[in-house]
Amino acid sequence: MKNLLLCCFLIIGFAGSGHAGNAVSPTPNGIAFPEDYKDWRVISSSHRLDNNTLRVILGNETAIEAARSGQTNPWPNGAILAKLVWKDSTLPSWEKAVVPGEFVHVEFMIKDSKKHQNTGGWGFARWKGLQQEPYGQDASFVYECFGCHTPVKENDYVFTHPSIIP
Amino acid sequence: MKNLLLCCFLIIGFAGSGHAGNAVSPTPNGIAFPEDYKDWRVISSSHRLDNNTLRVILGNETAIEAARSGQTNPWPNGAILAKLVWKDSTLPSWEKAVVPGEFVHVEFMIKDSKKHQNTGGWGFARWKGLQQEPYGQDASFVYECFGCHTPVKENDYVFTHPSIIP
Repeated sequence: MKNLLLCCFLIIGFAGSGHAGNAVSPTPNGIAFPEDYKDWRVISSSHRLDNNTLRVILGNETAIEAARSGQTNPWPNGAILAKLVWKDSTLPSWEKAVVPGEFVHVEFMIKDSKKHQNTGGWGFARWKGLQQEPYGQDASFVYECFGCHTPVKENDYVFTHPSIIP
Repeated sequence: MKNLLLCCFLIIGFAGSGHAGNAVSPTPNGIAFPEDYKDWRVISSSHRLDNNTLRVILGNETAIEAARSGQTNPWPNGAILAKLVWKDSTLPSWEKAVVPGEFVHVEFMIKDSKKHQNTGGWGFARWKGLQQEPYGQDASFVYECFGCHTPVKENDYVFTHPSIIP
């Protein structure tokens, strides 16, 4: 009985620590989910009319410092940008306002000019839906991301320009 | 010469302390500018198609805790919601995306069910433009704000619903 109880404690303890430690799987290119991203501060927002999604762009400490001091071309190593994406929705209380509906995904750009030198100095990662499922069949998915970002090479491969926040 | 230098130091010192202390004037209803609002965390965003503005809604610590635990009807005393508003703009790199352009204003709803009992428990405040000029000719401007929010009385007078952020 004593051994059974000990076993139960060990199993519960192991499961608990696993969940608290890293419940979300890394991407195929080995990027770990930034667990604290929703505590990061805001850099900008956007509304894509071609696919009807609303976006909020957050930054980690290094990114926020860079954005506020205008040092974003290039962004410094260590900067991470997070983009939260929702499908368009509306509220009955204000039908002429588009608001975030279903959560689509959160995606990240992680600046490390050495580690990610083949993709403009940026590591790309995306986790889909509420299940937070890593995007990409294998590590080569980053070339799909990088291809889309190549037209903004002159802005260090970043579409976002930090918004004016006085 | 010595007196002139002392005078210069005093003037510089006075101007400096004034700026660091509270450069932004309070609103006519006596609400002080929340200097740290741009470090608050994100609650939601919206895009108003009737007046072509993009918005990001942030919350102070109390508001974020309420939003994440679903305790927003009513919002707790001490919660403050900040809404940042920009005119619609576009980027040459992605013309089908609407992004924040010129900064319009930042406005706040401050929950204090006793102090602001005449306006649904909310204190209203707005600072306009990069000059951060307080909105309102006198303290009665809050009834204009409150009037607009009355249709969402059933949602504690708040238009915003916290977005899903896993």
